[in-house]
Amino acid sequence: MRLGGIDGALIIDFMKDKPAHATIKGGVTAPAGFLATSIYCGIKASNPSREDIALIFSESPAVAAGTFTTNMVKAAPVLASIANLRAPGTRAIIVNSGNANACTGPVGLAAAQRMCLATAAALGLKEREILVCSTGRIGVQLPIEKMEASIAQLPARLGKQSRAAAKAIMTSDSFPKETAVEVEIGGKPVRIGGIAKGAGMIDPNMATMLSFVTTDAAIGKADLAKALRASVGQSFNRITVDGDMSTNDTVLALANGRAGNPVLKFGSADFAIFQSALDQVTAALARMIVKDGEGVSRFVDLHVTGARTDAEARLAARAVANSILVKCSWYGGDPNWGRIIDAVGYSGARICEERVRISYNGLPAVIDGMAAATPAARLQAVARKKEFTVTVDLGTGNGTHRIWTTDLTTKYVDFNMGE
Amino acid sequence: MRLGGIDGALIIDFMKDKPAHATIKGGVTAPAGFLATSIYCGIKASNPSREDIALIFSESPAVAAGTFTTNMVKAAPVLASIANLRAPGTRAIIVNSGNANACTGPVGLAAAQRMCLATAAALGLKEREILVCSTGRIGVQLPIEKMEASIAQLPARLGKQSRAAAKAIMTSDSFPKETAVEVEIGGKPVRIGGIAKGAGMIDPNMATMLSFVTTDAAIGKADLAKALRASVGQSFNRITVDGDMSTNDTVLALANGRAGNPVLKFGSADFAIFQSALDQVTAALARMIVKDGEGVSRFVDLHVTGARTDAEARLAARAVANSILVKCSWYGGDPNWGRIIDAVGYSGARICEERVRISYNGLPAVIDGMAAATPAARLQAVARKKEFTVTVDLGTGNGTHRIWTTDLTTKYVDFNMGE
Repeated sequence: MRLGGIDGALIIDFMKDKPAHATIKGGVTAPAGFLATSIYCGIKASNPSREDIALIFSESPAVAAGTFTTNMVKAAPVLASIANLRAPGTRAIIVNSGNANACTGPVGLAAAQRMCLATAAALGLKEREILVCSTGRIGVQLPIEKMEASIAQLPARLGKQSRAAAKAIMTSDSFPKETAVEVEIGGKPVRIGGIAKGAGMIDPNMATMLSFVTTDAAIGKADLAKALRASVGQSFNRITVDGDMSTNDTVLALANGRAGNPVLKFGSADFAIFQSALDQVTAALARMIVKDGEGVSRFVDLHVTGARTDAEARLAARAVANSILVKCSWYGGDPNWGRIIDAVGYSGARICEERVRISYNGLPAVIDGMAAATPAARLQAVARKKEFTVTVDLGTGNGTHRIWTTDLTTKYVDFNMGE
Repeated sequence: MRLGGIDGALIIDFMKDKPAHATIKGGVTAPAGFLATSIYCGIKASNPSREDIALIFSESPAVAAGTFTTNMVKAAPVLASIANLRAPGTRAIIVNSGNANACTGPVGLAAAQRMCLATAAALGLKEREILVCSTGRIGVQLPIEKMEASIAQLPARLGKQSRAAAKAIMTSDSFPKETAVEVEIGGKPVRIGGIAKGAGMIDPNMATMLSFVTTDAAIGKADLAKALRASVGQSFNRITVDGDMSTNDTVLALANGRAGNPVLKFGSADFAIFQSALDQVTAALARMIVKDGEGVSRFVDLHVTGARTDAEARLAARAVANSILVKCSWYGGDPNWGRIIDAVGYSGARICEERVRISYNGLPAVIDGMAAATPAARLQAVARKKEFTVTVDLGTGNGTHRIWTTDLTTKYVDFNMGE
């Protein structure tokens, strides 16, 4: 996937394995003034028992920011949320699973707006204070009347129910994804929480990544947008399961200022603390999404170094991470460096073959473009682990890129072969 | 794969299903003055009984042309052949399977040159009159002494043995690939023959496509190069099994003039006849390669139309053809248009969502960006065939691109998961 925004120029390496900030419970309802809930509407015929609508609500007006799919085909709720984000204050996010409301034309766009209207009516708010997301089957109109009836029941159910909301947005996910952290800013405890759903395939029509982040930090709308874009660039835009990017991918953030900290200003030391905490939340959620990729058996932390530029490092990393052949070899626990060097060779990144180095968990597989002396059995022992690091140095400069990816398994193919 | 050269501006649609010219037997030895043979050397430990060196020989000097992988990592034989192609006359092509001689450094380059030298010595020729190819495992040095001994025995075995040569260059291919056609040019019968090996995975280290074309046409070196590049642009550069491009991909053509036709000149009517015959040979071989992709169960003829430019049509076609999700749905016989529109949406091609049309064997699946009225069962009946056509119209212009591709099967993943 690749959401709009920047691929971060952050110095802080929040992808480090040990979280820097205290994690707390509560997900999106950990920050003060945020409530959530969910309900069963029956959108998805094939899984009638699971709740399929979630609501995230701020008890006071929040500033909001969003990053959206860069796919030219944008689902109706993406268009509706982009429009409503222009309003100064946001109060709620309404989400359904089971139907993506994508490729549904004007009728679909009206349905997305009706989801906002129904939510606003139920909460006594304005339509523009609501953001909306959908995930699930593509090309099918929403059962909007039924949904309006369900949405009307949501306000009475609101509580600290982040986990229920995280479950209601799941499609092919095998577990709900939530996290939260607390940091001190200007002497005040500030909380950031998030939930997400996975990038695997859905229903079986659509791969969509959704994530919702809440915080009680006091921050301006423009600065929240900056922080979110940087954070997404280093987390959700650094993961790939199958290389596809959906019509619905969305990350939304709400900040309601209830923590009472001095308003965060971009470039300040306090902002950096906030950024690192936000980064920790998005990185944790991104990692959960990769680990929950359909049929995935290995998690690979791929570092490309020594590229001419960061952009070329990204090209190389994406070519390796999305190579069907590389992914198949990882599935087999085969540290097949030939397929890796082949992928960087066609990636579009400049390489110096005579200086290329590839290693598995630091063990050299390739030195100066040729097989290293490491015994095959030692490399295999790494590639057979559930999680390992692959480093590829292109030998042409100082550009780097890091990406989290997976193997490609027969289970994935079976899962995604449709009816 | 994508070889150097142009993506054709040819008007002749040689990809049509019915061959325009008479096909004949004999493969690369169908044209006058060409001989071939093969021998068992024992390069590939895992399959010791199969012949693994092939020789193609012209009884008189031929002009030669080649197109090579655009991968930045180029195998030693690619570098050696590029160098030797600069010589005016070529007499032979020496090829081994079981070892790609890629990522083998200066020792590997010397080994590729020694293959040429040994062949030249055996035939009483100069090293520069020999072209060389390798396919198989990457990163392992060739057993060159053993190979030199085998090469020395080749001249005595030469005959009209195109099929033996086609077998000796096989790796994971399940059948040898050869074809030949005869056309009349200037009152003379002119023959073009070819052999190829597949783009599936190998040994299990490397995907390589090799093809060798011979003709007894009289044609200048520069014009042969033009004809070959155009032909490759419309055949081998239009196929994709897994989206990967190897370090060794090579197409070589030799023309020895024995047909006695008036020398072909680019732009003439005779040249057009020759081009169409050459196109028929390369298209037939390309089609065989796709059909022989590992574990492939469906062959898909993908047409992208209505793009802003041909280049954008190519982007869209490649995104669809290489989408893991699209390929999985084809495997399941699922005419999943949501994944197709998603892939064109992120391909980089400009699209007009409200005008996008997708059809399976002409049955509309999407009209104006939304589901068409065709019953799902009828679309499924198409997607369950072994071979079908998918057409995607982007609704933004007149650019087109056609590509041949396959599904992605659990068998493919099993095959490529390594040891």
